[in-house]
Amino acid sequence: MASTTAGKVICCKAAVAWEPGKPLVIEEVEVAPPQANEVRLKILFTSLCHTDVYFWEATGQTPLFPRIFGHEAGGIVESVGEGVVDLKPGDHVLPVFTGECKECEHCKSEESNMCDLLRINTDRGVMLNDGKSRFSINGQPIYHFVGTSTFSEYTVVHVGCVAKINPAAPLDKVCVLSCGISTGLGATLNVAKPRKGSSVAVFGLGAVGLAAAEGARLAGASRIIGVDLNSKRFTEAKKFGVTEFVNPKDYDKSIQEVIAEMTGGGVDRSVECTGSISAMISAFECVHDGWGVAVLVGVPNKDDAFKTHPINVLNEKTLKGTFFGNYKPRSDLPSVVEMYMNKELELEKFITHEVPFAEINKAFEYMLKGEGLRCIIRMTA
Amino acid sequence: MASTTAGKVICCKAAVAWEPGKPLVIEEVEVAPPQANEVRLKILFTSLCHTDVYFWEATGQTPLFPRIFGHEAGGIVESVGEGVVDLKPGDHVLPVFTGECKECEHCKSEESNMCDLLRINTDRGVMLNDGKSRFSINGQPIYHFVGTSTFSEYTVVHVGCVAKINPAAPLDKVCVLSCGISTGLGATLNVAKPRKGSSVAVFGLGAVGLAAAEGARLAGASRIIGVDLNSKRFTEAKKFGVTEFVNPKDYDKSIQEVIAEMTGGGVDRSVECTGSISAMISAFECVHDGWGVAVLVGVPNKDDAFKTHPINVLNEKTLKGTFFGNYKPRSDLPSVVEMYMNKELELEKFITHEVPFAEINKAFEYMLKGEGLRCIIRMTA
Repeated sequence: MASTTAGKVICCKAAVAWEPGKPLVIEEVEVAPPQANEVRLKILFTSLCHTDVYFWEATGQTPLFPRIFGHEAGGIVESVGEGVVDLKPGDHVLPVFTGECKECEHCKSEESNMCDLLRINTDRGVMLNDGKSRFSINGQPIYHFVGTSTFSEYTVVHVGCVAKINPAAPLDKVCVLSCGISTGLGATLNVAKPRKGSSVAVFGLGAVGLAAAEGARLAGASRIIGVDLNSKRFTEAKKFGVTEFVNPKDYDKSIQEVIAEMTGGGVDRSVECTGSISAMISAFECVHDGWGVAVLVGVPNKDDAFKTHPINVLNEKTLKGTFFGNYKPRSDLPSVVEMYMNKELELEKFITHEVPFAEINKAFEYMLKGEGLRCIIRMTA
Repeated sequence: MASTTAGKVICCKAAVAWEPGKPLVIEEVEVAPPQANEVRLKILFTSLCHTDVYFWEATGQTPLFPRIFGHEAGGIVESVGEGVVDLKPGDHVLPVFTGECKECEHCKSEESNMCDLLRINTDRGVMLNDGKSRFSINGQPIYHFVGTSTFSEYTVVHVGCVAKINPAAPLDKVCVLSCGISTGLGATLNVAKPRKGSSVAVFGLGAVGLAAAEGARLAGASRIIGVDLNSKRFTEAKKFGVTEFVNPKDYDKSIQEVIAEMTGGGVDRSVECTGSISAMISAFECVHDGWGVAVLVGVPNKDDAFKTHPINVLNEKTLKGTFFGNYKPRSDLPSVVEMYMNKELELEKFITHEVPFAEINKAFEYMLKGEGLRCIIRMTA
């Protein structure tokens, strides 16, 4: 498919964050053509993830503004830069905040997805090729975010951060697989690997935690214990296979003791999706000795220390961490899309809101209020 | 083979520890017949392990005296108690300090060897069946140690703590597989599971650590980095496949930094065999992100805290612990003996001393001086 825009600057609408915590402003931006190993994508749907909000608030990080946020999305390749052979205009794709260069020792390892070249870098607001931004407004560069910047009708992404998917897959649904849902799902399916009939505790029942529960449901776990400080989340969580609910506020004892009592010594697997250090420790200590595996997903604060008595380790408990559910973006995401197409994986239940691009700030409001799970932002009318 | 002593009390020699830290005394003891699910063994060879010395010194534990220590040994079944069907007089066996009842959820799990019924209990000095000792001197009971008490010509052991092995195996060699050597070997082969050509760091180059190195050598690791505070150990360690040596005293920076520099980011696997909490933390932090696995073997102090920044976990490093190298005593030890019989596993190099039973206190002296690895104690002339 020949593109009439290939090689030219595209003027389009983007939601620009001019300052930390201030509403995004829809602006006309200029999007430069893709350079070597880059592709330019037309974004059709994007969704809002906590990470966007976290870096938009910029209370704990180096602020980098003006910036175009957004990293969960589905789109179509508009044009490709020099040296790109794996993608062509018209391909349906998911851009991803982390990449797969296929050349480094991580990409060559079966066990890792932490690409040396394209691993997430939240401080970088420019493209790797020339250290510059592809976005500008009247000549003023606008920074990229995690290499994706999907809150724009068009964006430029490194080819290593683009997963080519089944063109029959509805992009308004599978766009949520770009980040949070795959992270939780993969944490369970690829890392915790619960056996059929086993017990799994999930800490944190937001979108990532519910995706971890969905993974446990798919794996055939018979008990899925949801742990959350907000008891209202339990009703919703049942749709994701959660069978029991524990609110730490309801107990005087530690949550690991509560879970040990519920399960005769501990759960077979646990998945921690809050990033709270105390939840991380509970998630580790609540697994059964001899075979329990705890998987950490949630991102901790810089100064947190994970602390446990080493006997918990020596009692044959395993502690593992995961990044993006151990999925390699290009190699593995297409098969996650297929899980949805085969009706194994359910995505509709994660999508609780939808807004047109012009109302993108509403998506931020929903998330700040803790309303719903994922809000899809429709880029075109 | 019919035993003329079956059902009768046997009078024989045993090395009795009357008081903490005082030389053992060879005494005439009476050994009662085995009760239900017990077997009486004639011990031919036993070896001394740090754990014997640790509980004999009894500086950190509940003292339990008089007691017969010893838990690494090889022997022959003299008679069996009611209900014992898996063993008969004449069988060659290794008694083990932990057991395998084959009935509990741990024994039924493929992933655990931490039998609920027969898991090591260092505070118990009596048999499970009746809560009494089978040893006595003039009617005074002498306590058992970890269910084995092999510093006696005859001892009574629960059937679940006895591995039946190939009768062709030389008991004066394979007796060391009862505890330390299997612990280190299994930590590498069963838990760390290094791939061919990979790098492995071993913390602590005593018998257990050298057995872990031997496991890495058998697995085909190309770099085996030994870490020890005593540089004299490196020469000996080369026999066990150790290719490089690091003494933390030689560096101003942390050992995890040293190892990261040596290996371009970290080793593929590490095995911690010292029990020092700082070594445990180093062992975890020195593995490569993305795929590194650290295995803790050494037993920590009661008040130690394992502490690390959770980002080390989230960077896809795995922390595992192991107990007795994850071997199930009855199911798995026979195959370790076969590894020796097939000349894959080398045991001779672990055996640095040998003494007759009458000189058992010399074995304690060698260990207290840090001389050698294993001292075999010959029970019969």
